[in-house]
Amino acid sequence: MAKHDFKNSKSKWMEGLGPQDDIVLTSRIRLARNLQNLPFPHLLDEAKEKEVVQLVSQAITTRQFSDQFGETAVWQLEELSPLEKQILVEKHLISPDFAERSKGAVVLNRDESISIMINEEDHLRIQILLPAFQLGAAWELANKLDDALEEKLDFAFNENRGYLTACPTNLGTGLRASVMLHLPALVMARQEKVIFNSLTKLGLTVRGFYGEGSDVQSNLYQISNQITLGLTENEIINNLVAVAQQLIDREKAARNLLNEELTYRMEDQALRAYGILSNARILSSEEALNLLSDLRLGIDLKIVNDVDYRVFNELIALIQPGILQGRAGKEMTARDRDLKRAEIIKEKLKV
Amino acid sequence: MAKHDFKNSKSKWMEGLGPQDDIVLTSRIRLARNLQNLPFPHLLDEAKEKEVVQLVSQAITTRQFSDQFGETAVWQLEELSPLEKQILVEKHLISPDFAERSKGAVVLNRDESISIMINEEDHLRIQILLPAFQLGAAWELANKLDDALEEKLDFAFNENRGYLTACPTNLGTGLRASVMLHLPALVMARQEKVIFNSLTKLGLTVRGFYGEGSDVQSNLYQISNQITLGLTENEIINNLVAVAQQLIDREKAARNLLNEELTYRMEDQALRAYGILSNARILSSEEALNLLSDLRLGIDLKIVNDVDYRVFNELIALIQPGILQGRAGKEMTARDRDLKRAEIIKEKLKV
Repeated sequence: MAKHDFKNSKSKWMEGLGPQDDIVLTSRIRLARNLQNLPFPHLLDEAKEKEVVQLVSQAITTRQFSDQFGETAVWQLEELSPLEKQILVEKHLISPDFAERSKGAVVLNRDESISIMINEEDHLRIQILLPAFQLGAAWELANKLDDALEEKLDFAFNENRGYLTACPTNLGTGLRASVMLHLPALVMARQEKVIFNSLTKLGLTVRGFYGEGSDVQSNLYQISNQITLGLTENEIINNLVAVAQQLIDREKAARNLLNEELTYRMEDQALRAYGILSNARILSSEEALNLLSDLRLGIDLKIVNDVDYRVFNELIALIQPGILQGRAGKEMTARDRDLKRAEIIKEKLKV
Repeated sequence: MAKHDFKNSKSKWMEGLGPQDDIVLTSRIRLARNLQNLPFPHLLDEAKEKEVVQLVSQAITTRQFSDQFGETAVWQLEELSPLEKQILVEKHLISPDFAERSKGAVVLNRDESISIMINEEDHLRIQILLPAFQLGAAWELANKLDDALEEKLDFAFNENRGYLTACPTNLGTGLRASVMLHLPALVMARQEKVIFNSLTKLGLTVRGFYGEGSDVQSNLYQISNQITLGLTENEIINNLVAVAQQLIDREKAARNLLNEELTYRMEDQALRAYGILSNARILSSEEALNLLSDLRLGIDLKIVNDVDYRVFNELIALIQPGILQGRAGKEMTARDRDLKRAEIIKEKLKV
């Protein structure tokens, strides 16, 4: 199991291109699974905790598994530095909570479309993360992966309640599907709140860029299913796909319906963002993300023509403090990061 | 007397280049003069008001005068539209007060280095306005012009009190000399207030970009003499030159003494200004002026290398609402001006 250098690698989702990439940044499937006859992670002693990691590691290191999913490797949390864990969070490969721990492990494949947290809230948290609107493809891959793992591992399953999970909100399918949408025109037309309120009634949740508990930043919204029980996986996915498509259509309509005044304002915002990003000497990650969101709108509206979505998705990762330091190969002060961030952005926008 | 099209012409000061042009924008001399045996302007009836304009017009339309000072022409205020008067204010050729009136006239030479307001507060307000640090040259020209006019006109003069003026603060020499300085480093180092307080004790006044009563904008400060009586013209000029030179030296020292942190901030500010100015779709005159001030600092610090002071001085005039509409040849809404302003700036910065 040769481990790849995730500090410098590009995750699949960072490639950015794919169906409806003008509005959808990423599609994500997450499955919660637990092993039979072992307590949930928060009740595990050290020996059993290691046993779980061991069992999962064995399951993924078979020839059969790598033939199907490519090379994967396991990192023990205790062998990762705080910076490395931060990078995994910024790449959306592990949860912020998980990064705080020293017990547990993470499995990644080479292009980081597959990640498995071992002993987070559940024994396994399987994630498929793809760029653009590819929920179907992500679900298909997750499903295959789940089947392959199930051949080697005994998952806790109950005829009535489905997959058992540490938290009852994940019971049943253990499935959470989500899409990250960029909805600047809906926000500018002040329609986003009304729409999001109605999503809640459809059993969906709206979150920010870094998932649960994170603020909405830069017009980026993560929409996911709330309900995991009483529906089949296909129903959950199809429901989310249908609602996401409606949001995409509404965003497109809002972009077309912008009146002259709003069009000027949007163009102005996008062009200023481009001007600042390609010239500034100092950029914080928060400001950079907001400006990148404005820039992306410029790409959407064909105002900014020499930048494409690949640069956007790559940059929203590269500007994160951990990834930035990982690439630089050293820890940096906030000021040094701000300088470096501006430098990287300037460089990328030149191409 | 062929009148030139001042709505589209470039004033001498807008050329921007000259001694110490990295800090000094303009040098200005103003002389207040009144005709003997005629009441001050605020007491003139219509017939006598016309007589004053008539007398001054005759004095400047001699062959002798044009041989010495080039072609000049006289515009009656009543023949000027509000927009045209606004343009003259924005070009610093007449006072905002004067622009409000319908009686009176203004004399301009071709390059607008000479302007004479007839029947403003005094019968004649003679102004010489040059780019950069040229107080000596401006005074020399003003003096010659004064002598030439005095050959044709009887100026009210009293052995003890010197030239008589409507307001006693101008008695004596009737001279006001001023320089417009760009002092961003002193402002950033928070030294400007202490310095300006000491200027008052030296009999000098600090004002904003549009003279008396105007706010300081964009780190632009107009320094002028307060006292006109009891000193010779040469003493007044030399005093101002000496103090201005001290301010220039202090600004230069402040630029050199900027610590690393301030240097980054200044570079950042200048580069962002450049990025916004060369990309924005909408720009108000106030924002544009502030950004141009930041950009100028970038030129000063050799961070921005493809823009020179000519562009700067020209732009701070071109972005003014009146001049903008004058060039466009039509009245425009605020929004249309903001769009046009951004377009003009983008265009000029490309060169």
